[in-house]
Amino acid sequence: MKRYLFVIVLALTISGSLCFAQTSQPTINEDFKPSTLNQPGKEFPQVNSLGYVRFRIEAPQAQSVVVSLGLGGTKGGTPLTKAEDGSWMGTTAGPMDEGFHYYHLTIDGGIFNDPGALNFYGSTRWESGIEIPAHDQDFYALKDVPHGNVQQILFPSKSTNTSRRALVYTPPTYGKDKNKRYPVLYLQHGWGEDETAWSNQGHANLIMDNLIAEDKTKPFIIVMTYGMTNEIKWGGLKNFDITPFQTVLVDELIPYVDANFNTIADQQHRAMAGLSMGGMETHTITLNKPEVFSYYALLSGGLYKPEEIKDKSKVKLIFLSCGSFENPDGVKNSALALKEAGFNVVSFVSENTRHEFQTWRRSLQELAPLLFKD
Amino acid sequence: MKRYLFVIVLALTISGSLCFAQTSQPTINEDFKPSTLNQPGKEFPQVNSLGYVRFRIEAPQAQSVVVSLGLGGTKGGTPLTKAEDGSWMGTTAGPMDEGFHYYHLTIDGGIFNDPGALNFYGSTRWESGIEIPAHDQDFYALKDVPHGNVQQILFPSKSTNTSRRALVYTPPTYGKDKNKRYPVLYLQHGWGEDETAWSNQGHANLIMDNLIAEDKTKPFIIVMTYGMTNEIKWGGLKNFDITPFQTVLVDELIPYVDANFNTIADQQHRAMAGLSMGGMETHTITLNKPEVFSYYALLSGGLYKPEEIKDKSKVKLIFLSCGSFENPDGVKNSALALKEAGFNVVSFVSENTRHEFQTWRRSLQELAPLLFKD
Repeated sequence: MKRYLFVIVLALTISGSLCFAQTSQPTINEDFKPSTLNQPGKEFPQVNSLGYVRFRIEAPQAQSVVVSLGLGGTKGGTPLTKAEDGSWMGTTAGPMDEGFHYYHLTIDGGIFNDPGALNFYGSTRWESGIEIPAHDQDFYALKDVPHGNVQQILFPSKSTNTSRRALVYTPPTYGKDKNKRYPVLYLQHGWGEDETAWSNQGHANLIMDNLIAEDKTKPFIIVMTYGMTNEIKWGGLKNFDITPFQTVLVDELIPYVDANFNTIADQQHRAMAGLSMGGMETHTITLNKPEVFSYYALLSGGLYKPEEIKDKSKVKLIFLSCGSFENPDGVKNSALALKEAGFNVVSFVSENTRHEFQTWRRSLQELAPLLFKD
Repeated sequence: MKRYLFVIVLALTISGSLCFAQTSQPTINEDFKPSTLNQPGKEFPQVNSLGYVRFRIEAPQAQSVVVSLGLGGTKGGTPLTKAEDGSWMGTTAGPMDEGFHYYHLTIDGGIFNDPGALNFYGSTRWESGIEIPAHDQDFYALKDVPHGNVQQILFPSKSTNTSRRALVYTPPTYGKDKNKRYPVLYLQHGWGEDETAWSNQGHANLIMDNLIAEDKTKPFIIVMTYGMTNEIKWGGLKNFDITPFQTVLVDELIPYVDANFNTIADQQHRAMAGLSMGGMETHTITLNKPEVFSYYALLSGGLYKPEEIKDKSKVKLIFLSCGSFENPDGVKNSALALKEAGFNVVSFVSENTRHEFQTWRRSLQELAPLLFKD
């Protein structure tokens, strides 16, 4: 126990915000369990019932091991200390936000993943991931309900001269009645991520399976592909050219999906949504191509101004969301302005979450039932 | 250049087999290129035209960085040395075998993955992977041909009280003619791997796409699921109980696949194959369940004795293979004995490969055209 207290003191000291070493420390519930995102058989990292995370890294000759995960989303970090068995151990200085977080280790100045955790593609690299059990985690849990499939397709792309990958979620009933056709949601990841994010980190397939099992949404197909966002850096956004991705999406992927899946291949049955930079892409492409999509959704990914949309009659729904620690007033005000201008708009604020996947899981949970209602 | 020669000398010295430091060193072709399995945008590791691999790891304060990849498959390793820019660099002491290899880093006594490389599930953990271009790599290349899909299914398993994952390859024509039905190959990974191995490491989908495009094989479905092999250690094989996996495969997965895909659901149109420990599972299950499979294939995964098979009329094909650096005589002799006993048997030896995926990619390439011919 003592060594964990010491770690906390050290963490607080290093963070620079608190220096009351050796004084009363909060008690940490000693009910740590292996994270659900650990690699098979790995005991660490562990999470306790309050959302504290404890790490254990074996690197006996290392000089320094720091975990990037700290309080307040991605801010700060957790330095580990040498334990008696030669491993490096440490616990976050407080509880983490509910949901999924990326993290990595800095070992002797180099960046590596935690060998105990599964990896997820974010920040333009495969990073370690951890899951903090959430009070509402049931909606993305793997349950004993009929499951849809997630399939990798390789579609030809003349504009980029290659076969490109997309992941396609088909609902549990898909293919049972060979004449039944489904609407389609094109769902984009954020900067630094790729087409795997929405199913791996987001559990989009399980969210849909569970909603469908409770008859809370119409079944529909979800198509996820790489948004070509990773070449640019934040700050360089103004120079981002949407044309290459718009061409891949609208001129190559959509026709391929419509030719190879049982889709309802018209504007009224096609939605586009994206998180973060995928929201920016959604914003631009839906405005550029009003004849292609009729449902628009930006998840922590910008806003629409009423005057941007030329033909109001073509838009069935605008959905705007973010975490309560992001810009909820911006979302609410934009929704109000759109509503006043006569749009069908729904806004959603995820309580106590930031620019992370728990916000976007909840957003999809709210969005899906609103899609393709007629 | 000099520092790489030093690394080679050091590597040979440490290996203990050669100690002729400072004498004539072989010239390394300086045509290194980033490995095709690098994470997006990563320059290292690199491979040259002779199959040497060069590593570069940033960990400025580390005391020691060693790469597990060395000569002769997984034997030995490659210690890195501090370069002028503070990174750790080194080159393998010789060319690696063609094809895919797992590897990891030992940094200050701890085991981590190379942040430059993609990860693949092997050795019961996600390991770094590298691809040495092979003279015959065309057969598993991503080409401009019609592509089948690889889809994740979640099937209910009463015996294990959960939803289990399988990956299903469907050929390019699948679903186009809604009345067409396909035979099925159940294809198992080896010890320490899981259901992702055959598509990620093995490129089973691309091998099939290419064979089908050249009309060299009948199109068929491939189903890959986790063989529950990872709980046991080598040496404990004698205690391995096949029953739990056999139940999942035969009583749960096969009925689910037959109910949800357009399969020809009979013994004559069902094959089982496995690599390494998956071959051991194939051997046991095909013998236990002659009414389920008619094509049997062991890839570096054991042999059949003629007297093990009770009803010869139920077996359409036995396929046995391995790498030339494994046990080719064992494979050839077993094939001979089976042939003399009247079985339809084909053996295949992959030249200059070991107990690794290049052997198994080639084996699938040889096996597929032999399946479901009538």
